[in-house]
Amino acid sequence: MNMGFVSLVGAGPGDPDLLTRKAVRALRAADLVLYDALVDRTVMRIAPRAHWFYVGKRAHRPSVRQETINALMIRAARRGKCVVRLKCGDPFVLGRGGEEALALAAAGIRFEVVPGVTTAIAAPALANIPVTHRGLASGFVLVSGHDEAAYGPVLGSIAPGSATVVVLMGLRARVDIANLLMGRGWNAATPAAVLFAASTTRQETWIGTLGALASASVPSAADRPGTIVVGDVVSVGAQLAGMTAEVQDEASIKRA
Amino acid sequence: MNMGFVSLVGAGPGDPDLLTRKAVRALRAADLVLYDALVDRTVMRIAPRAHWFYVGKRAHRPSVRQETINALMIRAARRGKCVVRLKCGDPFVLGRGGEEALALAAAGIRFEVVPGVTTAIAAPALANIPVTHRGLASGFVLVSGHDEAAYGPVLGSIAPGSATVVVLMGLRARVDIANLLMGRGWNAATPAAVLFAASTTRQETWIGTLGALASASVPSAADRPGTIVVGDVVSVGAQLAGMTAEVQDEASIKRA
Repeated sequence: MNMGFVSLVGAGPGDPDLLTRKAVRALRAADLVLYDALVDRTVMRIAPRAHWFYVGKRAHRPSVRQETINALMIRAARRGKCVVRLKCGDPFVLGRGGEEALALAAAGIRFEVVPGVTTAIAAPALANIPVTHRGLASGFVLVSGHDEAAYGPVLGSIAPGSATVVVLMGLRARVDIANLLMGRGWNAATPAAVLFAASTTRQETWIGTLGALASASVPSAADRPGTIVVGDVVSVGAQLAGMTAEVQDEASIKRA
Repeated sequence: MNMGFVSLVGAGPGDPDLLTRKAVRALRAADLVLYDALVDRTVMRIAPRAHWFYVGKRAHRPSVRQETINALMIRAARRGKCVVRLKCGDPFVLGRGGEEALALAAAGIRFEVVPGVTTAIAAPALANIPVTHRGLASGFVLVSGHDEAAYGPVLGSIAPGSATVVVLMGLRARVDIANLLMGRGWNAATPAAVLFAASTTRQETWIGTLGALASASVPSAADRPGTIVVGDVVSVGAQLAGMTAEVQDEASIKRA
């Protein structure tokens, strides 16, 4: 019996150099790659002989259903193929990797999880913002900004300033999120940042305050993804940007 | 003027295959590597011509002071050297990477941050536990278990069950952490896991409950690092371990 194998692989935040060696190895061995939006197209060069199949969401077009993705993986593996399910960031951070793993296990398909560099940490890091920093934050909270039922209980309860807040997929809800935090008691002057398209050529950093995050001063998202960071750690990024402006080749910084 | 360069590089959770391509490139170009405990020694083969200098903490021995590490980086860079500061996991997650970046910037040294795969996400992932999972958790909280002043305000405020809790460096404080959460209203039956030495050959997974985490049923840590995870997502890992026991080559699982 020639059973295939599925690797659930994190592609990192965008820059192909932030793929892990294990991810590269899985891609080189792949017969089929099922990939998401935001995966850099130059990654395709790593596995030129594989069949690349796009299963991500695209604006104004229906996205491929999760059941369909699962069925594609299972069918290929049963035909003896090596499949890579290539997901942005880390497969287990807001990526439905767990659901895919359960579907594969239920079908008796062998699989592995290859963790990746998560955008939640790397997007701020690439703007020199550490999600933790001694004296400022010894922890962070990551939530999806996709719907209020998900982020509301977390952000509505956590003690103001006790941890850095990172929101993925939160650009549309940024006003609600900022107001929720301020309503919980967070100071409107708390530093905040939005990292657009981190680690790609379209990278842009907005630095302001929690109060400004709720205003119109944040650039329009257009079709770029954005990571929101709220907390005093943002001041480290702002400080570093100022200190290193002369010696570093930095991404553009816009201030509110 | 022949100015050097410093890369603050995340080494990932332990497995050298979880280094990013960018980390490998930085290591290959390095003249000097300042590395922490827990960095796998086989990583040294990537940069055999570099001088490797250990600056991590070791039990029963005084650790190298942060000021000394900063001074070593700055001195080498001023002599035109390429320096890699190789840190476990991600350099900006509880790793003092921000402090090192500030010291470098203050000294006028060019530097870059190379994000890595964080142990906080990869340790659970390698035990098939997703830190987020639709219907169970759409976010997670990461804290250091190093001292109560740091994790207390976060874990003492967050609404029970509203997010997965991940604690790094929390093995010694696990009883206090479990009691703090239960005092806040978390159910003692909430699934919990401890991931020991994730992604290394000494990897071991303990799966139990929040109540059991506060008991003596957790294996002794010995000298292994451990990652604590509390939340319903742990049940996904337990479920997958059961489903895949026959087809997967899994790390040993001990149940409380």
